[in-house]
Order: sequence, then structure tokens, then C-alpha cells
Amino acid sequence: MKNRRIVLASRPTGIPTPENFTLVEADIPELEDGQVLLENQVFAIDPAVRGMLDDVKSYMPPVQIGGLIPTMVLGRVIKSRNPAFKEGDYGRGFIGWEEYSVLNPTSVAFENVKIDPTIPLTAYMGALGWSGITAYVGLLDTGAMKAGDVVVVSAAAGAVGSVAGQVAKLRGCRVVGIVGSDEKAEMITKELGMDAAVNYKTAPDLEAAIKAACPDGIDLYFDNVGGKTLDTILPLMNDFGRIPVCGMIANYNHQTEPYLLRNIWQVLVHRITMRGFLAYEAVDMLHEAEDQLAAWFKSGELIATENVSTGLESTPAAFIRLMAGETSGKTLVRLNDRITTLG
Amino acid sequence: MKNRRIVLASRPTGIPTPENFTLVEADIPELEDGQVLLENQVFAIDPAVRGMLDDVKSYMPPVQIGGLIPTMVLGRVIKSRNPAFKEGDYGRGFIGWEEYSVLNPTSVAFENVKIDPTIPLTAYMGALGWSGITAYVGLLDTGAMKAGDVVVVSAAAGAVGSVAGQVAKLRGCRVVGIVGSDEKAEMITKELGMDAAVNYKTAPDLEAAIKAACPDGIDLYFDNVGGKTLDTILPLMNDFGRIPVCGMIANYNHQTEPYLLRNIWQVLVHRITMRGFLAYEAVDMLHEAEDQLAAWFKSGELIATENVSTGLESTPAAFIRLMAGETSGKTLVRLNDRITTLG
Repeated sequence: MKNRRIVLASRPTGIPTPENFTLVEADIPELEDGQVLLENQVFAIDPAVRGMLDDVKSYMPPVQIGGLIPTMVLGRVIKSRNPAFKEGDYGRGFIGWEEYSVLNPTSVAFENVKIDPTIPLTAYMGALGWSGITAYVGLLDTGAMKAGDVVVVSAAAGAVGSVAGQVAKLRGCRVVGIVGSDEKAEMITKELGMDAAVNYKTAPDLEAAIKAACPDGIDLYFDNVGGKTLDTILPLMNDFGRIPVCGMIANYNHQTEPYLLRNIWQVLVHRITMRGFLAYEAVDMLHEAEDQLAAWFKSGELIATENVSTGLESTPAAFIRLMAGETSGKTLVRLNDRITTLG
Repeated sequence: MKNRRIVLASRPTGIPTPENFTLVEADIPELEDGQVLLENQVFAIDPAVRGMLDDVKSYMPPVQIGGLIPTMVLGRVIKSRNPAFKEGDYGRGFIGWEEYSVLNPTSVAFENVKIDPTIPLTAYMGALGWSGITAYVGLLDTGAMKAGDVVVVSAAAGAVGSVAGQVAKLRGCRVVGIVGSDEKAEMITKELGMDAAVNYKTAPDLEAAIKAACPDGIDLYFDNVGGKTLDTILPLMNDFGRIPVCGMIANYNHQTEPYLLRNIWQVLVHRITMRGFLAYEAVDMLHEAEDQLAAWFKSGELIATENVSTGLESTPAAFIRLMAGETSGKTLVRLNDRITTLG
């Protein structure tokens, strides 16, 4: 039995291209004591990975040329030499674009995931996984959201943004989503129930468009993008506004030529709190987030928007589409049937 | 008896010039019920006033042409028709560049100040007044400072910065001050006890100089200046670093052409909390701040660095020197003897 993996062939400049990635075959090593063999089921494709493809210090080390592209994986244990995991268990960890993985789940961050058989596997990698948890933690912990807040979410049709907008609505806020197409604008208002949408690509005057959608100012801006959108929103914030910084996708493709921010001094004018966060560090809120998101999903109040492709080979294209802003909802790869029937 | 006042003659562009200000005479109105007549003793000259001279929305309304230049004033009550104040009382409020003031202390923000006769009057307008309180609140409330933090203070020889650096030392931190001259560098290390100083005007590579002074990174950056210094420090922050934003003097002179910030996405990389604040809004900490600062001053542990000129006519020049970065410590105007012997 051979493993297949996708590794970094060359460093992308700007938006990645297919040539930056190569599929290679590899042997699957014998299990050592404490290790498990995973048959990988779902990859979550995350824009934050883009930063790791540059040779620049970030909160994760850079991927080396020839190195496995890292990603969050939902895997099923098909062999175990670790007492904490038995065959048939599911787990989630930051592994990579490969069909099988061998790891010691107690020495790397690999968490057991209890699968509810009435919930599709992909949901555990999107709305009920780290994307959803990130939305929840960013709003309620980092952003100290309260009912009645005017909340603006950028990349509001994206994996995190689509959940953030729904969670803010479910908790009694007015929600305006910023998106990059009219289809996404329609999706977030008609399907996800957000109050208004602004298409930043077609608005003749972005500031005027956001202002019109938020006549009482903005209490909380859930920032997924940084760049010009952040700069435009800073002067529109209300006093004591909060900006949880979840992502700055505008910078992932442009680290050497970042957007130059003009309005940062509005942080002082409006006594804004701007705070970067990583959801998994909010240890006190993680269980609450998982339970609440699953409950909303089962009751039908939370919709998981997903963009699923199939098979390992489809992964680079899925990542490129995501980085080009062409997707809605969570971008996921479901590994193919050959894989899911093995073991 | 005539009053003399300084009003805005024209709006400055960049650093103000003497032509932007005019001295005018005015009558002193009869007191109405509830009002007091103040003989003003000390003006605190504050860079934040610069923002009010532009016709731009900020946290304070803009000064109109012909309008009194606002400033914090320490005044002595020489007539009172308000039961809360009697002749000889002192009070502090945001009034303006004038020799006498008539106001109702219960309808505007005018606070009684208990004067300790062993402490000079000017201290109540600097290290023991709003400058000192701002330093204290910014570090301990907004910045959540704890012993052992590496603290960087910009404008470290300034009114707020000189107190912030001393307070951080008194609370067990390592302190690096950023200043604009070698004289200031010597003053903050030799006289005020900060651990190191960086002269941003002469350092050939500002980032390298700050890095060399902070080999273990920066936990708290007390930002008095914004602009290039903030941009340089963002990548040097430690994870979970805090940036209380007290002032962005770099922007006061350049609102139409602000410095363009390159590194804001470091907020995400290092999960930084950046927060603007106004000290008087930290109501729960104000008394603690006043008491602690006065105690340190009386024990000799806190030095009040002051830059005092005399007489109403000296006020515009004092403000211009402050905005040009030529001063150290708190810039104050002590009104002249003619005034202080009246009443």
C-alpha cells in the first residue's frame, strides 16, 4: 500500500499556481509504539496556509521546498498502537495533503472527534470545526459581542465569515456582510439571514456603501481580510468598538507589498480595541463553542456552507480557487471512495 | 478688570506658527448663580489640542476661527456663587488660554483639586495630573502591565512618556525609551532611570536599534507617536503583546498625509491587543493613580520633568516648541505674577 502526498514544488508569488505543487508517492512506515495509522477523510483548506508557503516568520514555521503542504485533516484510525485511539475512531489534527498519515496522537496536537452519525463528516471540518469555532471565539471572546451590536463581517461568504454572520444574528445583532460578488451578497442575505451585504468590488464608494448599511456606526468589525476594507472601516467604528483580527487575507498574497494602512489613528479617536487571535488559544471557550454550534446545526438555525471537491488531486486547485476569492463557504476536499473503503 | 485670552487666528498646516494665534482682550462677565471666577494659575500644554485646530471630526470638536484655544487649566477660585467652591479653592478643568475664567463647575467638567502645600502647583498639571494619570492608566489598565514585562515607551522624554517609563520601572519592568535627541536619551536613562534609550533620529537602522535594546522582544509598547515607530515595533512584539495607544503625534501634524502603516498584520501574527484609550474614561482607576503618583513624588521615586514658561503671551511659543518636538517633560505655562497676586 502506497501513500500519495502533495508537496511544495516552488514558492508562489502572489496567488499560487498549479506548478507550485507536486504529487509524490511515498511508503507508509510500520507503526511504532504509540502511533496510529490514519486513513484521511476530509481536508480543510485554509487561507492561513498561504503565509507558510513564503520563507517568512509567522505564527507557523514556513514549509520547505519538497515539504508536505500542511492542512487540518479529519482522519479515521485504521490501525492503532496507541491506547487512547482504537480502530474506527475519528480525529482531527494539523497534518497535510496526504491520503494516509502515521503519527503519535499524544505527541502532536491530534484531538479525538466524536462523530454524530446524523451530521455529515464535512461539517466537522467547517461550521462545526475550526472555522465555526474561530467565528464563535472571535465574536464572543476576542470581540466581546453583545446583543444589539452592529456587526460587520468581511469575507462574509467565506468559511469563517459565513458562520460569524449567522452567530451574530443568532445572538441578537444587526449584521452587515462584505463580499466580493453579487451571488455571495444574495447568498448571505437570502440564505444565511444577514441584514445587508456590501459588494466591495462593485461599490463605487466603499466607505459610503458601508456607511449606508450601518447608519448607527459599527460596534464590532470581524476582520477576515485586513487591507483596504479595514482601512475604510476604521473611521466608521463607534467609540469603544472592537476589531477581532481573524485573518488578513489581503496580506497573504502580498507580504512583500502589503496594503499601507492610512487610518490606524482612528484606534485612538474611537478608543478601539483591535486584537489578533487564534481560536485554539481560547481554551476556556472551545467546548462551549463546539456544543453550541452543533446544537444550532442540528436545529437548522446554523447553515454550513461548503465547497467540496473530491480526491487528493483536486486539492491544489481547491486552494488556488480559495486564494483567488472564487469560493463561498468552507473549502473542503473529501478524499475519494477508494480511500474511504480501505482499512 | 480686563481678561486677556488667546484665540485661533487661522488654521495651521503642519506645525503651528505664531500667526495662527492672536491675543485679544475681553470683559469679565458678572457672576451668575452657580458660577465661579477663576484666576488661572497653570496651563498644561497638550499635543492632542493640535487635532482640534483642524476642521476634522475627532474625539473633541474642532476649534472655530476666533475661538479660545482649549487647554487644561489649574485655577484658583477668587469669587464664588457656587456652594461647592469657596474662595481659595483650586480646581482643574478643560478651559482655555485665558487669564480669568467664569464657569459653572457643576455644569462643566471642573474638578476640585486638593493642593498639598509641600508640592509645587505645576506638578498637579503634569506628573500628578492628567499626564501622569494617563501614563498610569495606559500601562496598568489598557496595557495590563505586569512585573517582568519588557516595556517600550515612545516620546519617552515627553510629558506622558517620562512618567510612563518611571512607572514601568517602579513596577518591576525593563524599560526602553525612544527619544529624538541624545540629550533626551541621557535624561531618561541617567535622571529617570530607564534601562536604555534609542534615538530614532540618529539610529542608522531603527528596527535593529530597538531589537538590540530588546533582545527578548517587547511585551508592552506604550505608543505616544504612531507612524513609523509603531510600524517598526509591530514585528518586534512578543506573542500576546499589548499596545495601549495614547497618542499618535506623528499624525497630528499630518492628518491629510498620514504615515502609511505596513505591518498591521503583525497584530494577527503575534495576537497583539492594540487599544486606544482616554485616561479619564478609566473611572475605576483614577483615584488609585492620583494617590500612587503623589506618594511616589513625595518619596522622591517619581521625578516630574517640566518645561515651564511664564505669562499668557508665552503660550503659543510653548505649544509650537512642543509640536516641533523640542521639549522634554511636561510643557506648562505658569501665569505671571501680576495675575497670581490678584484676588
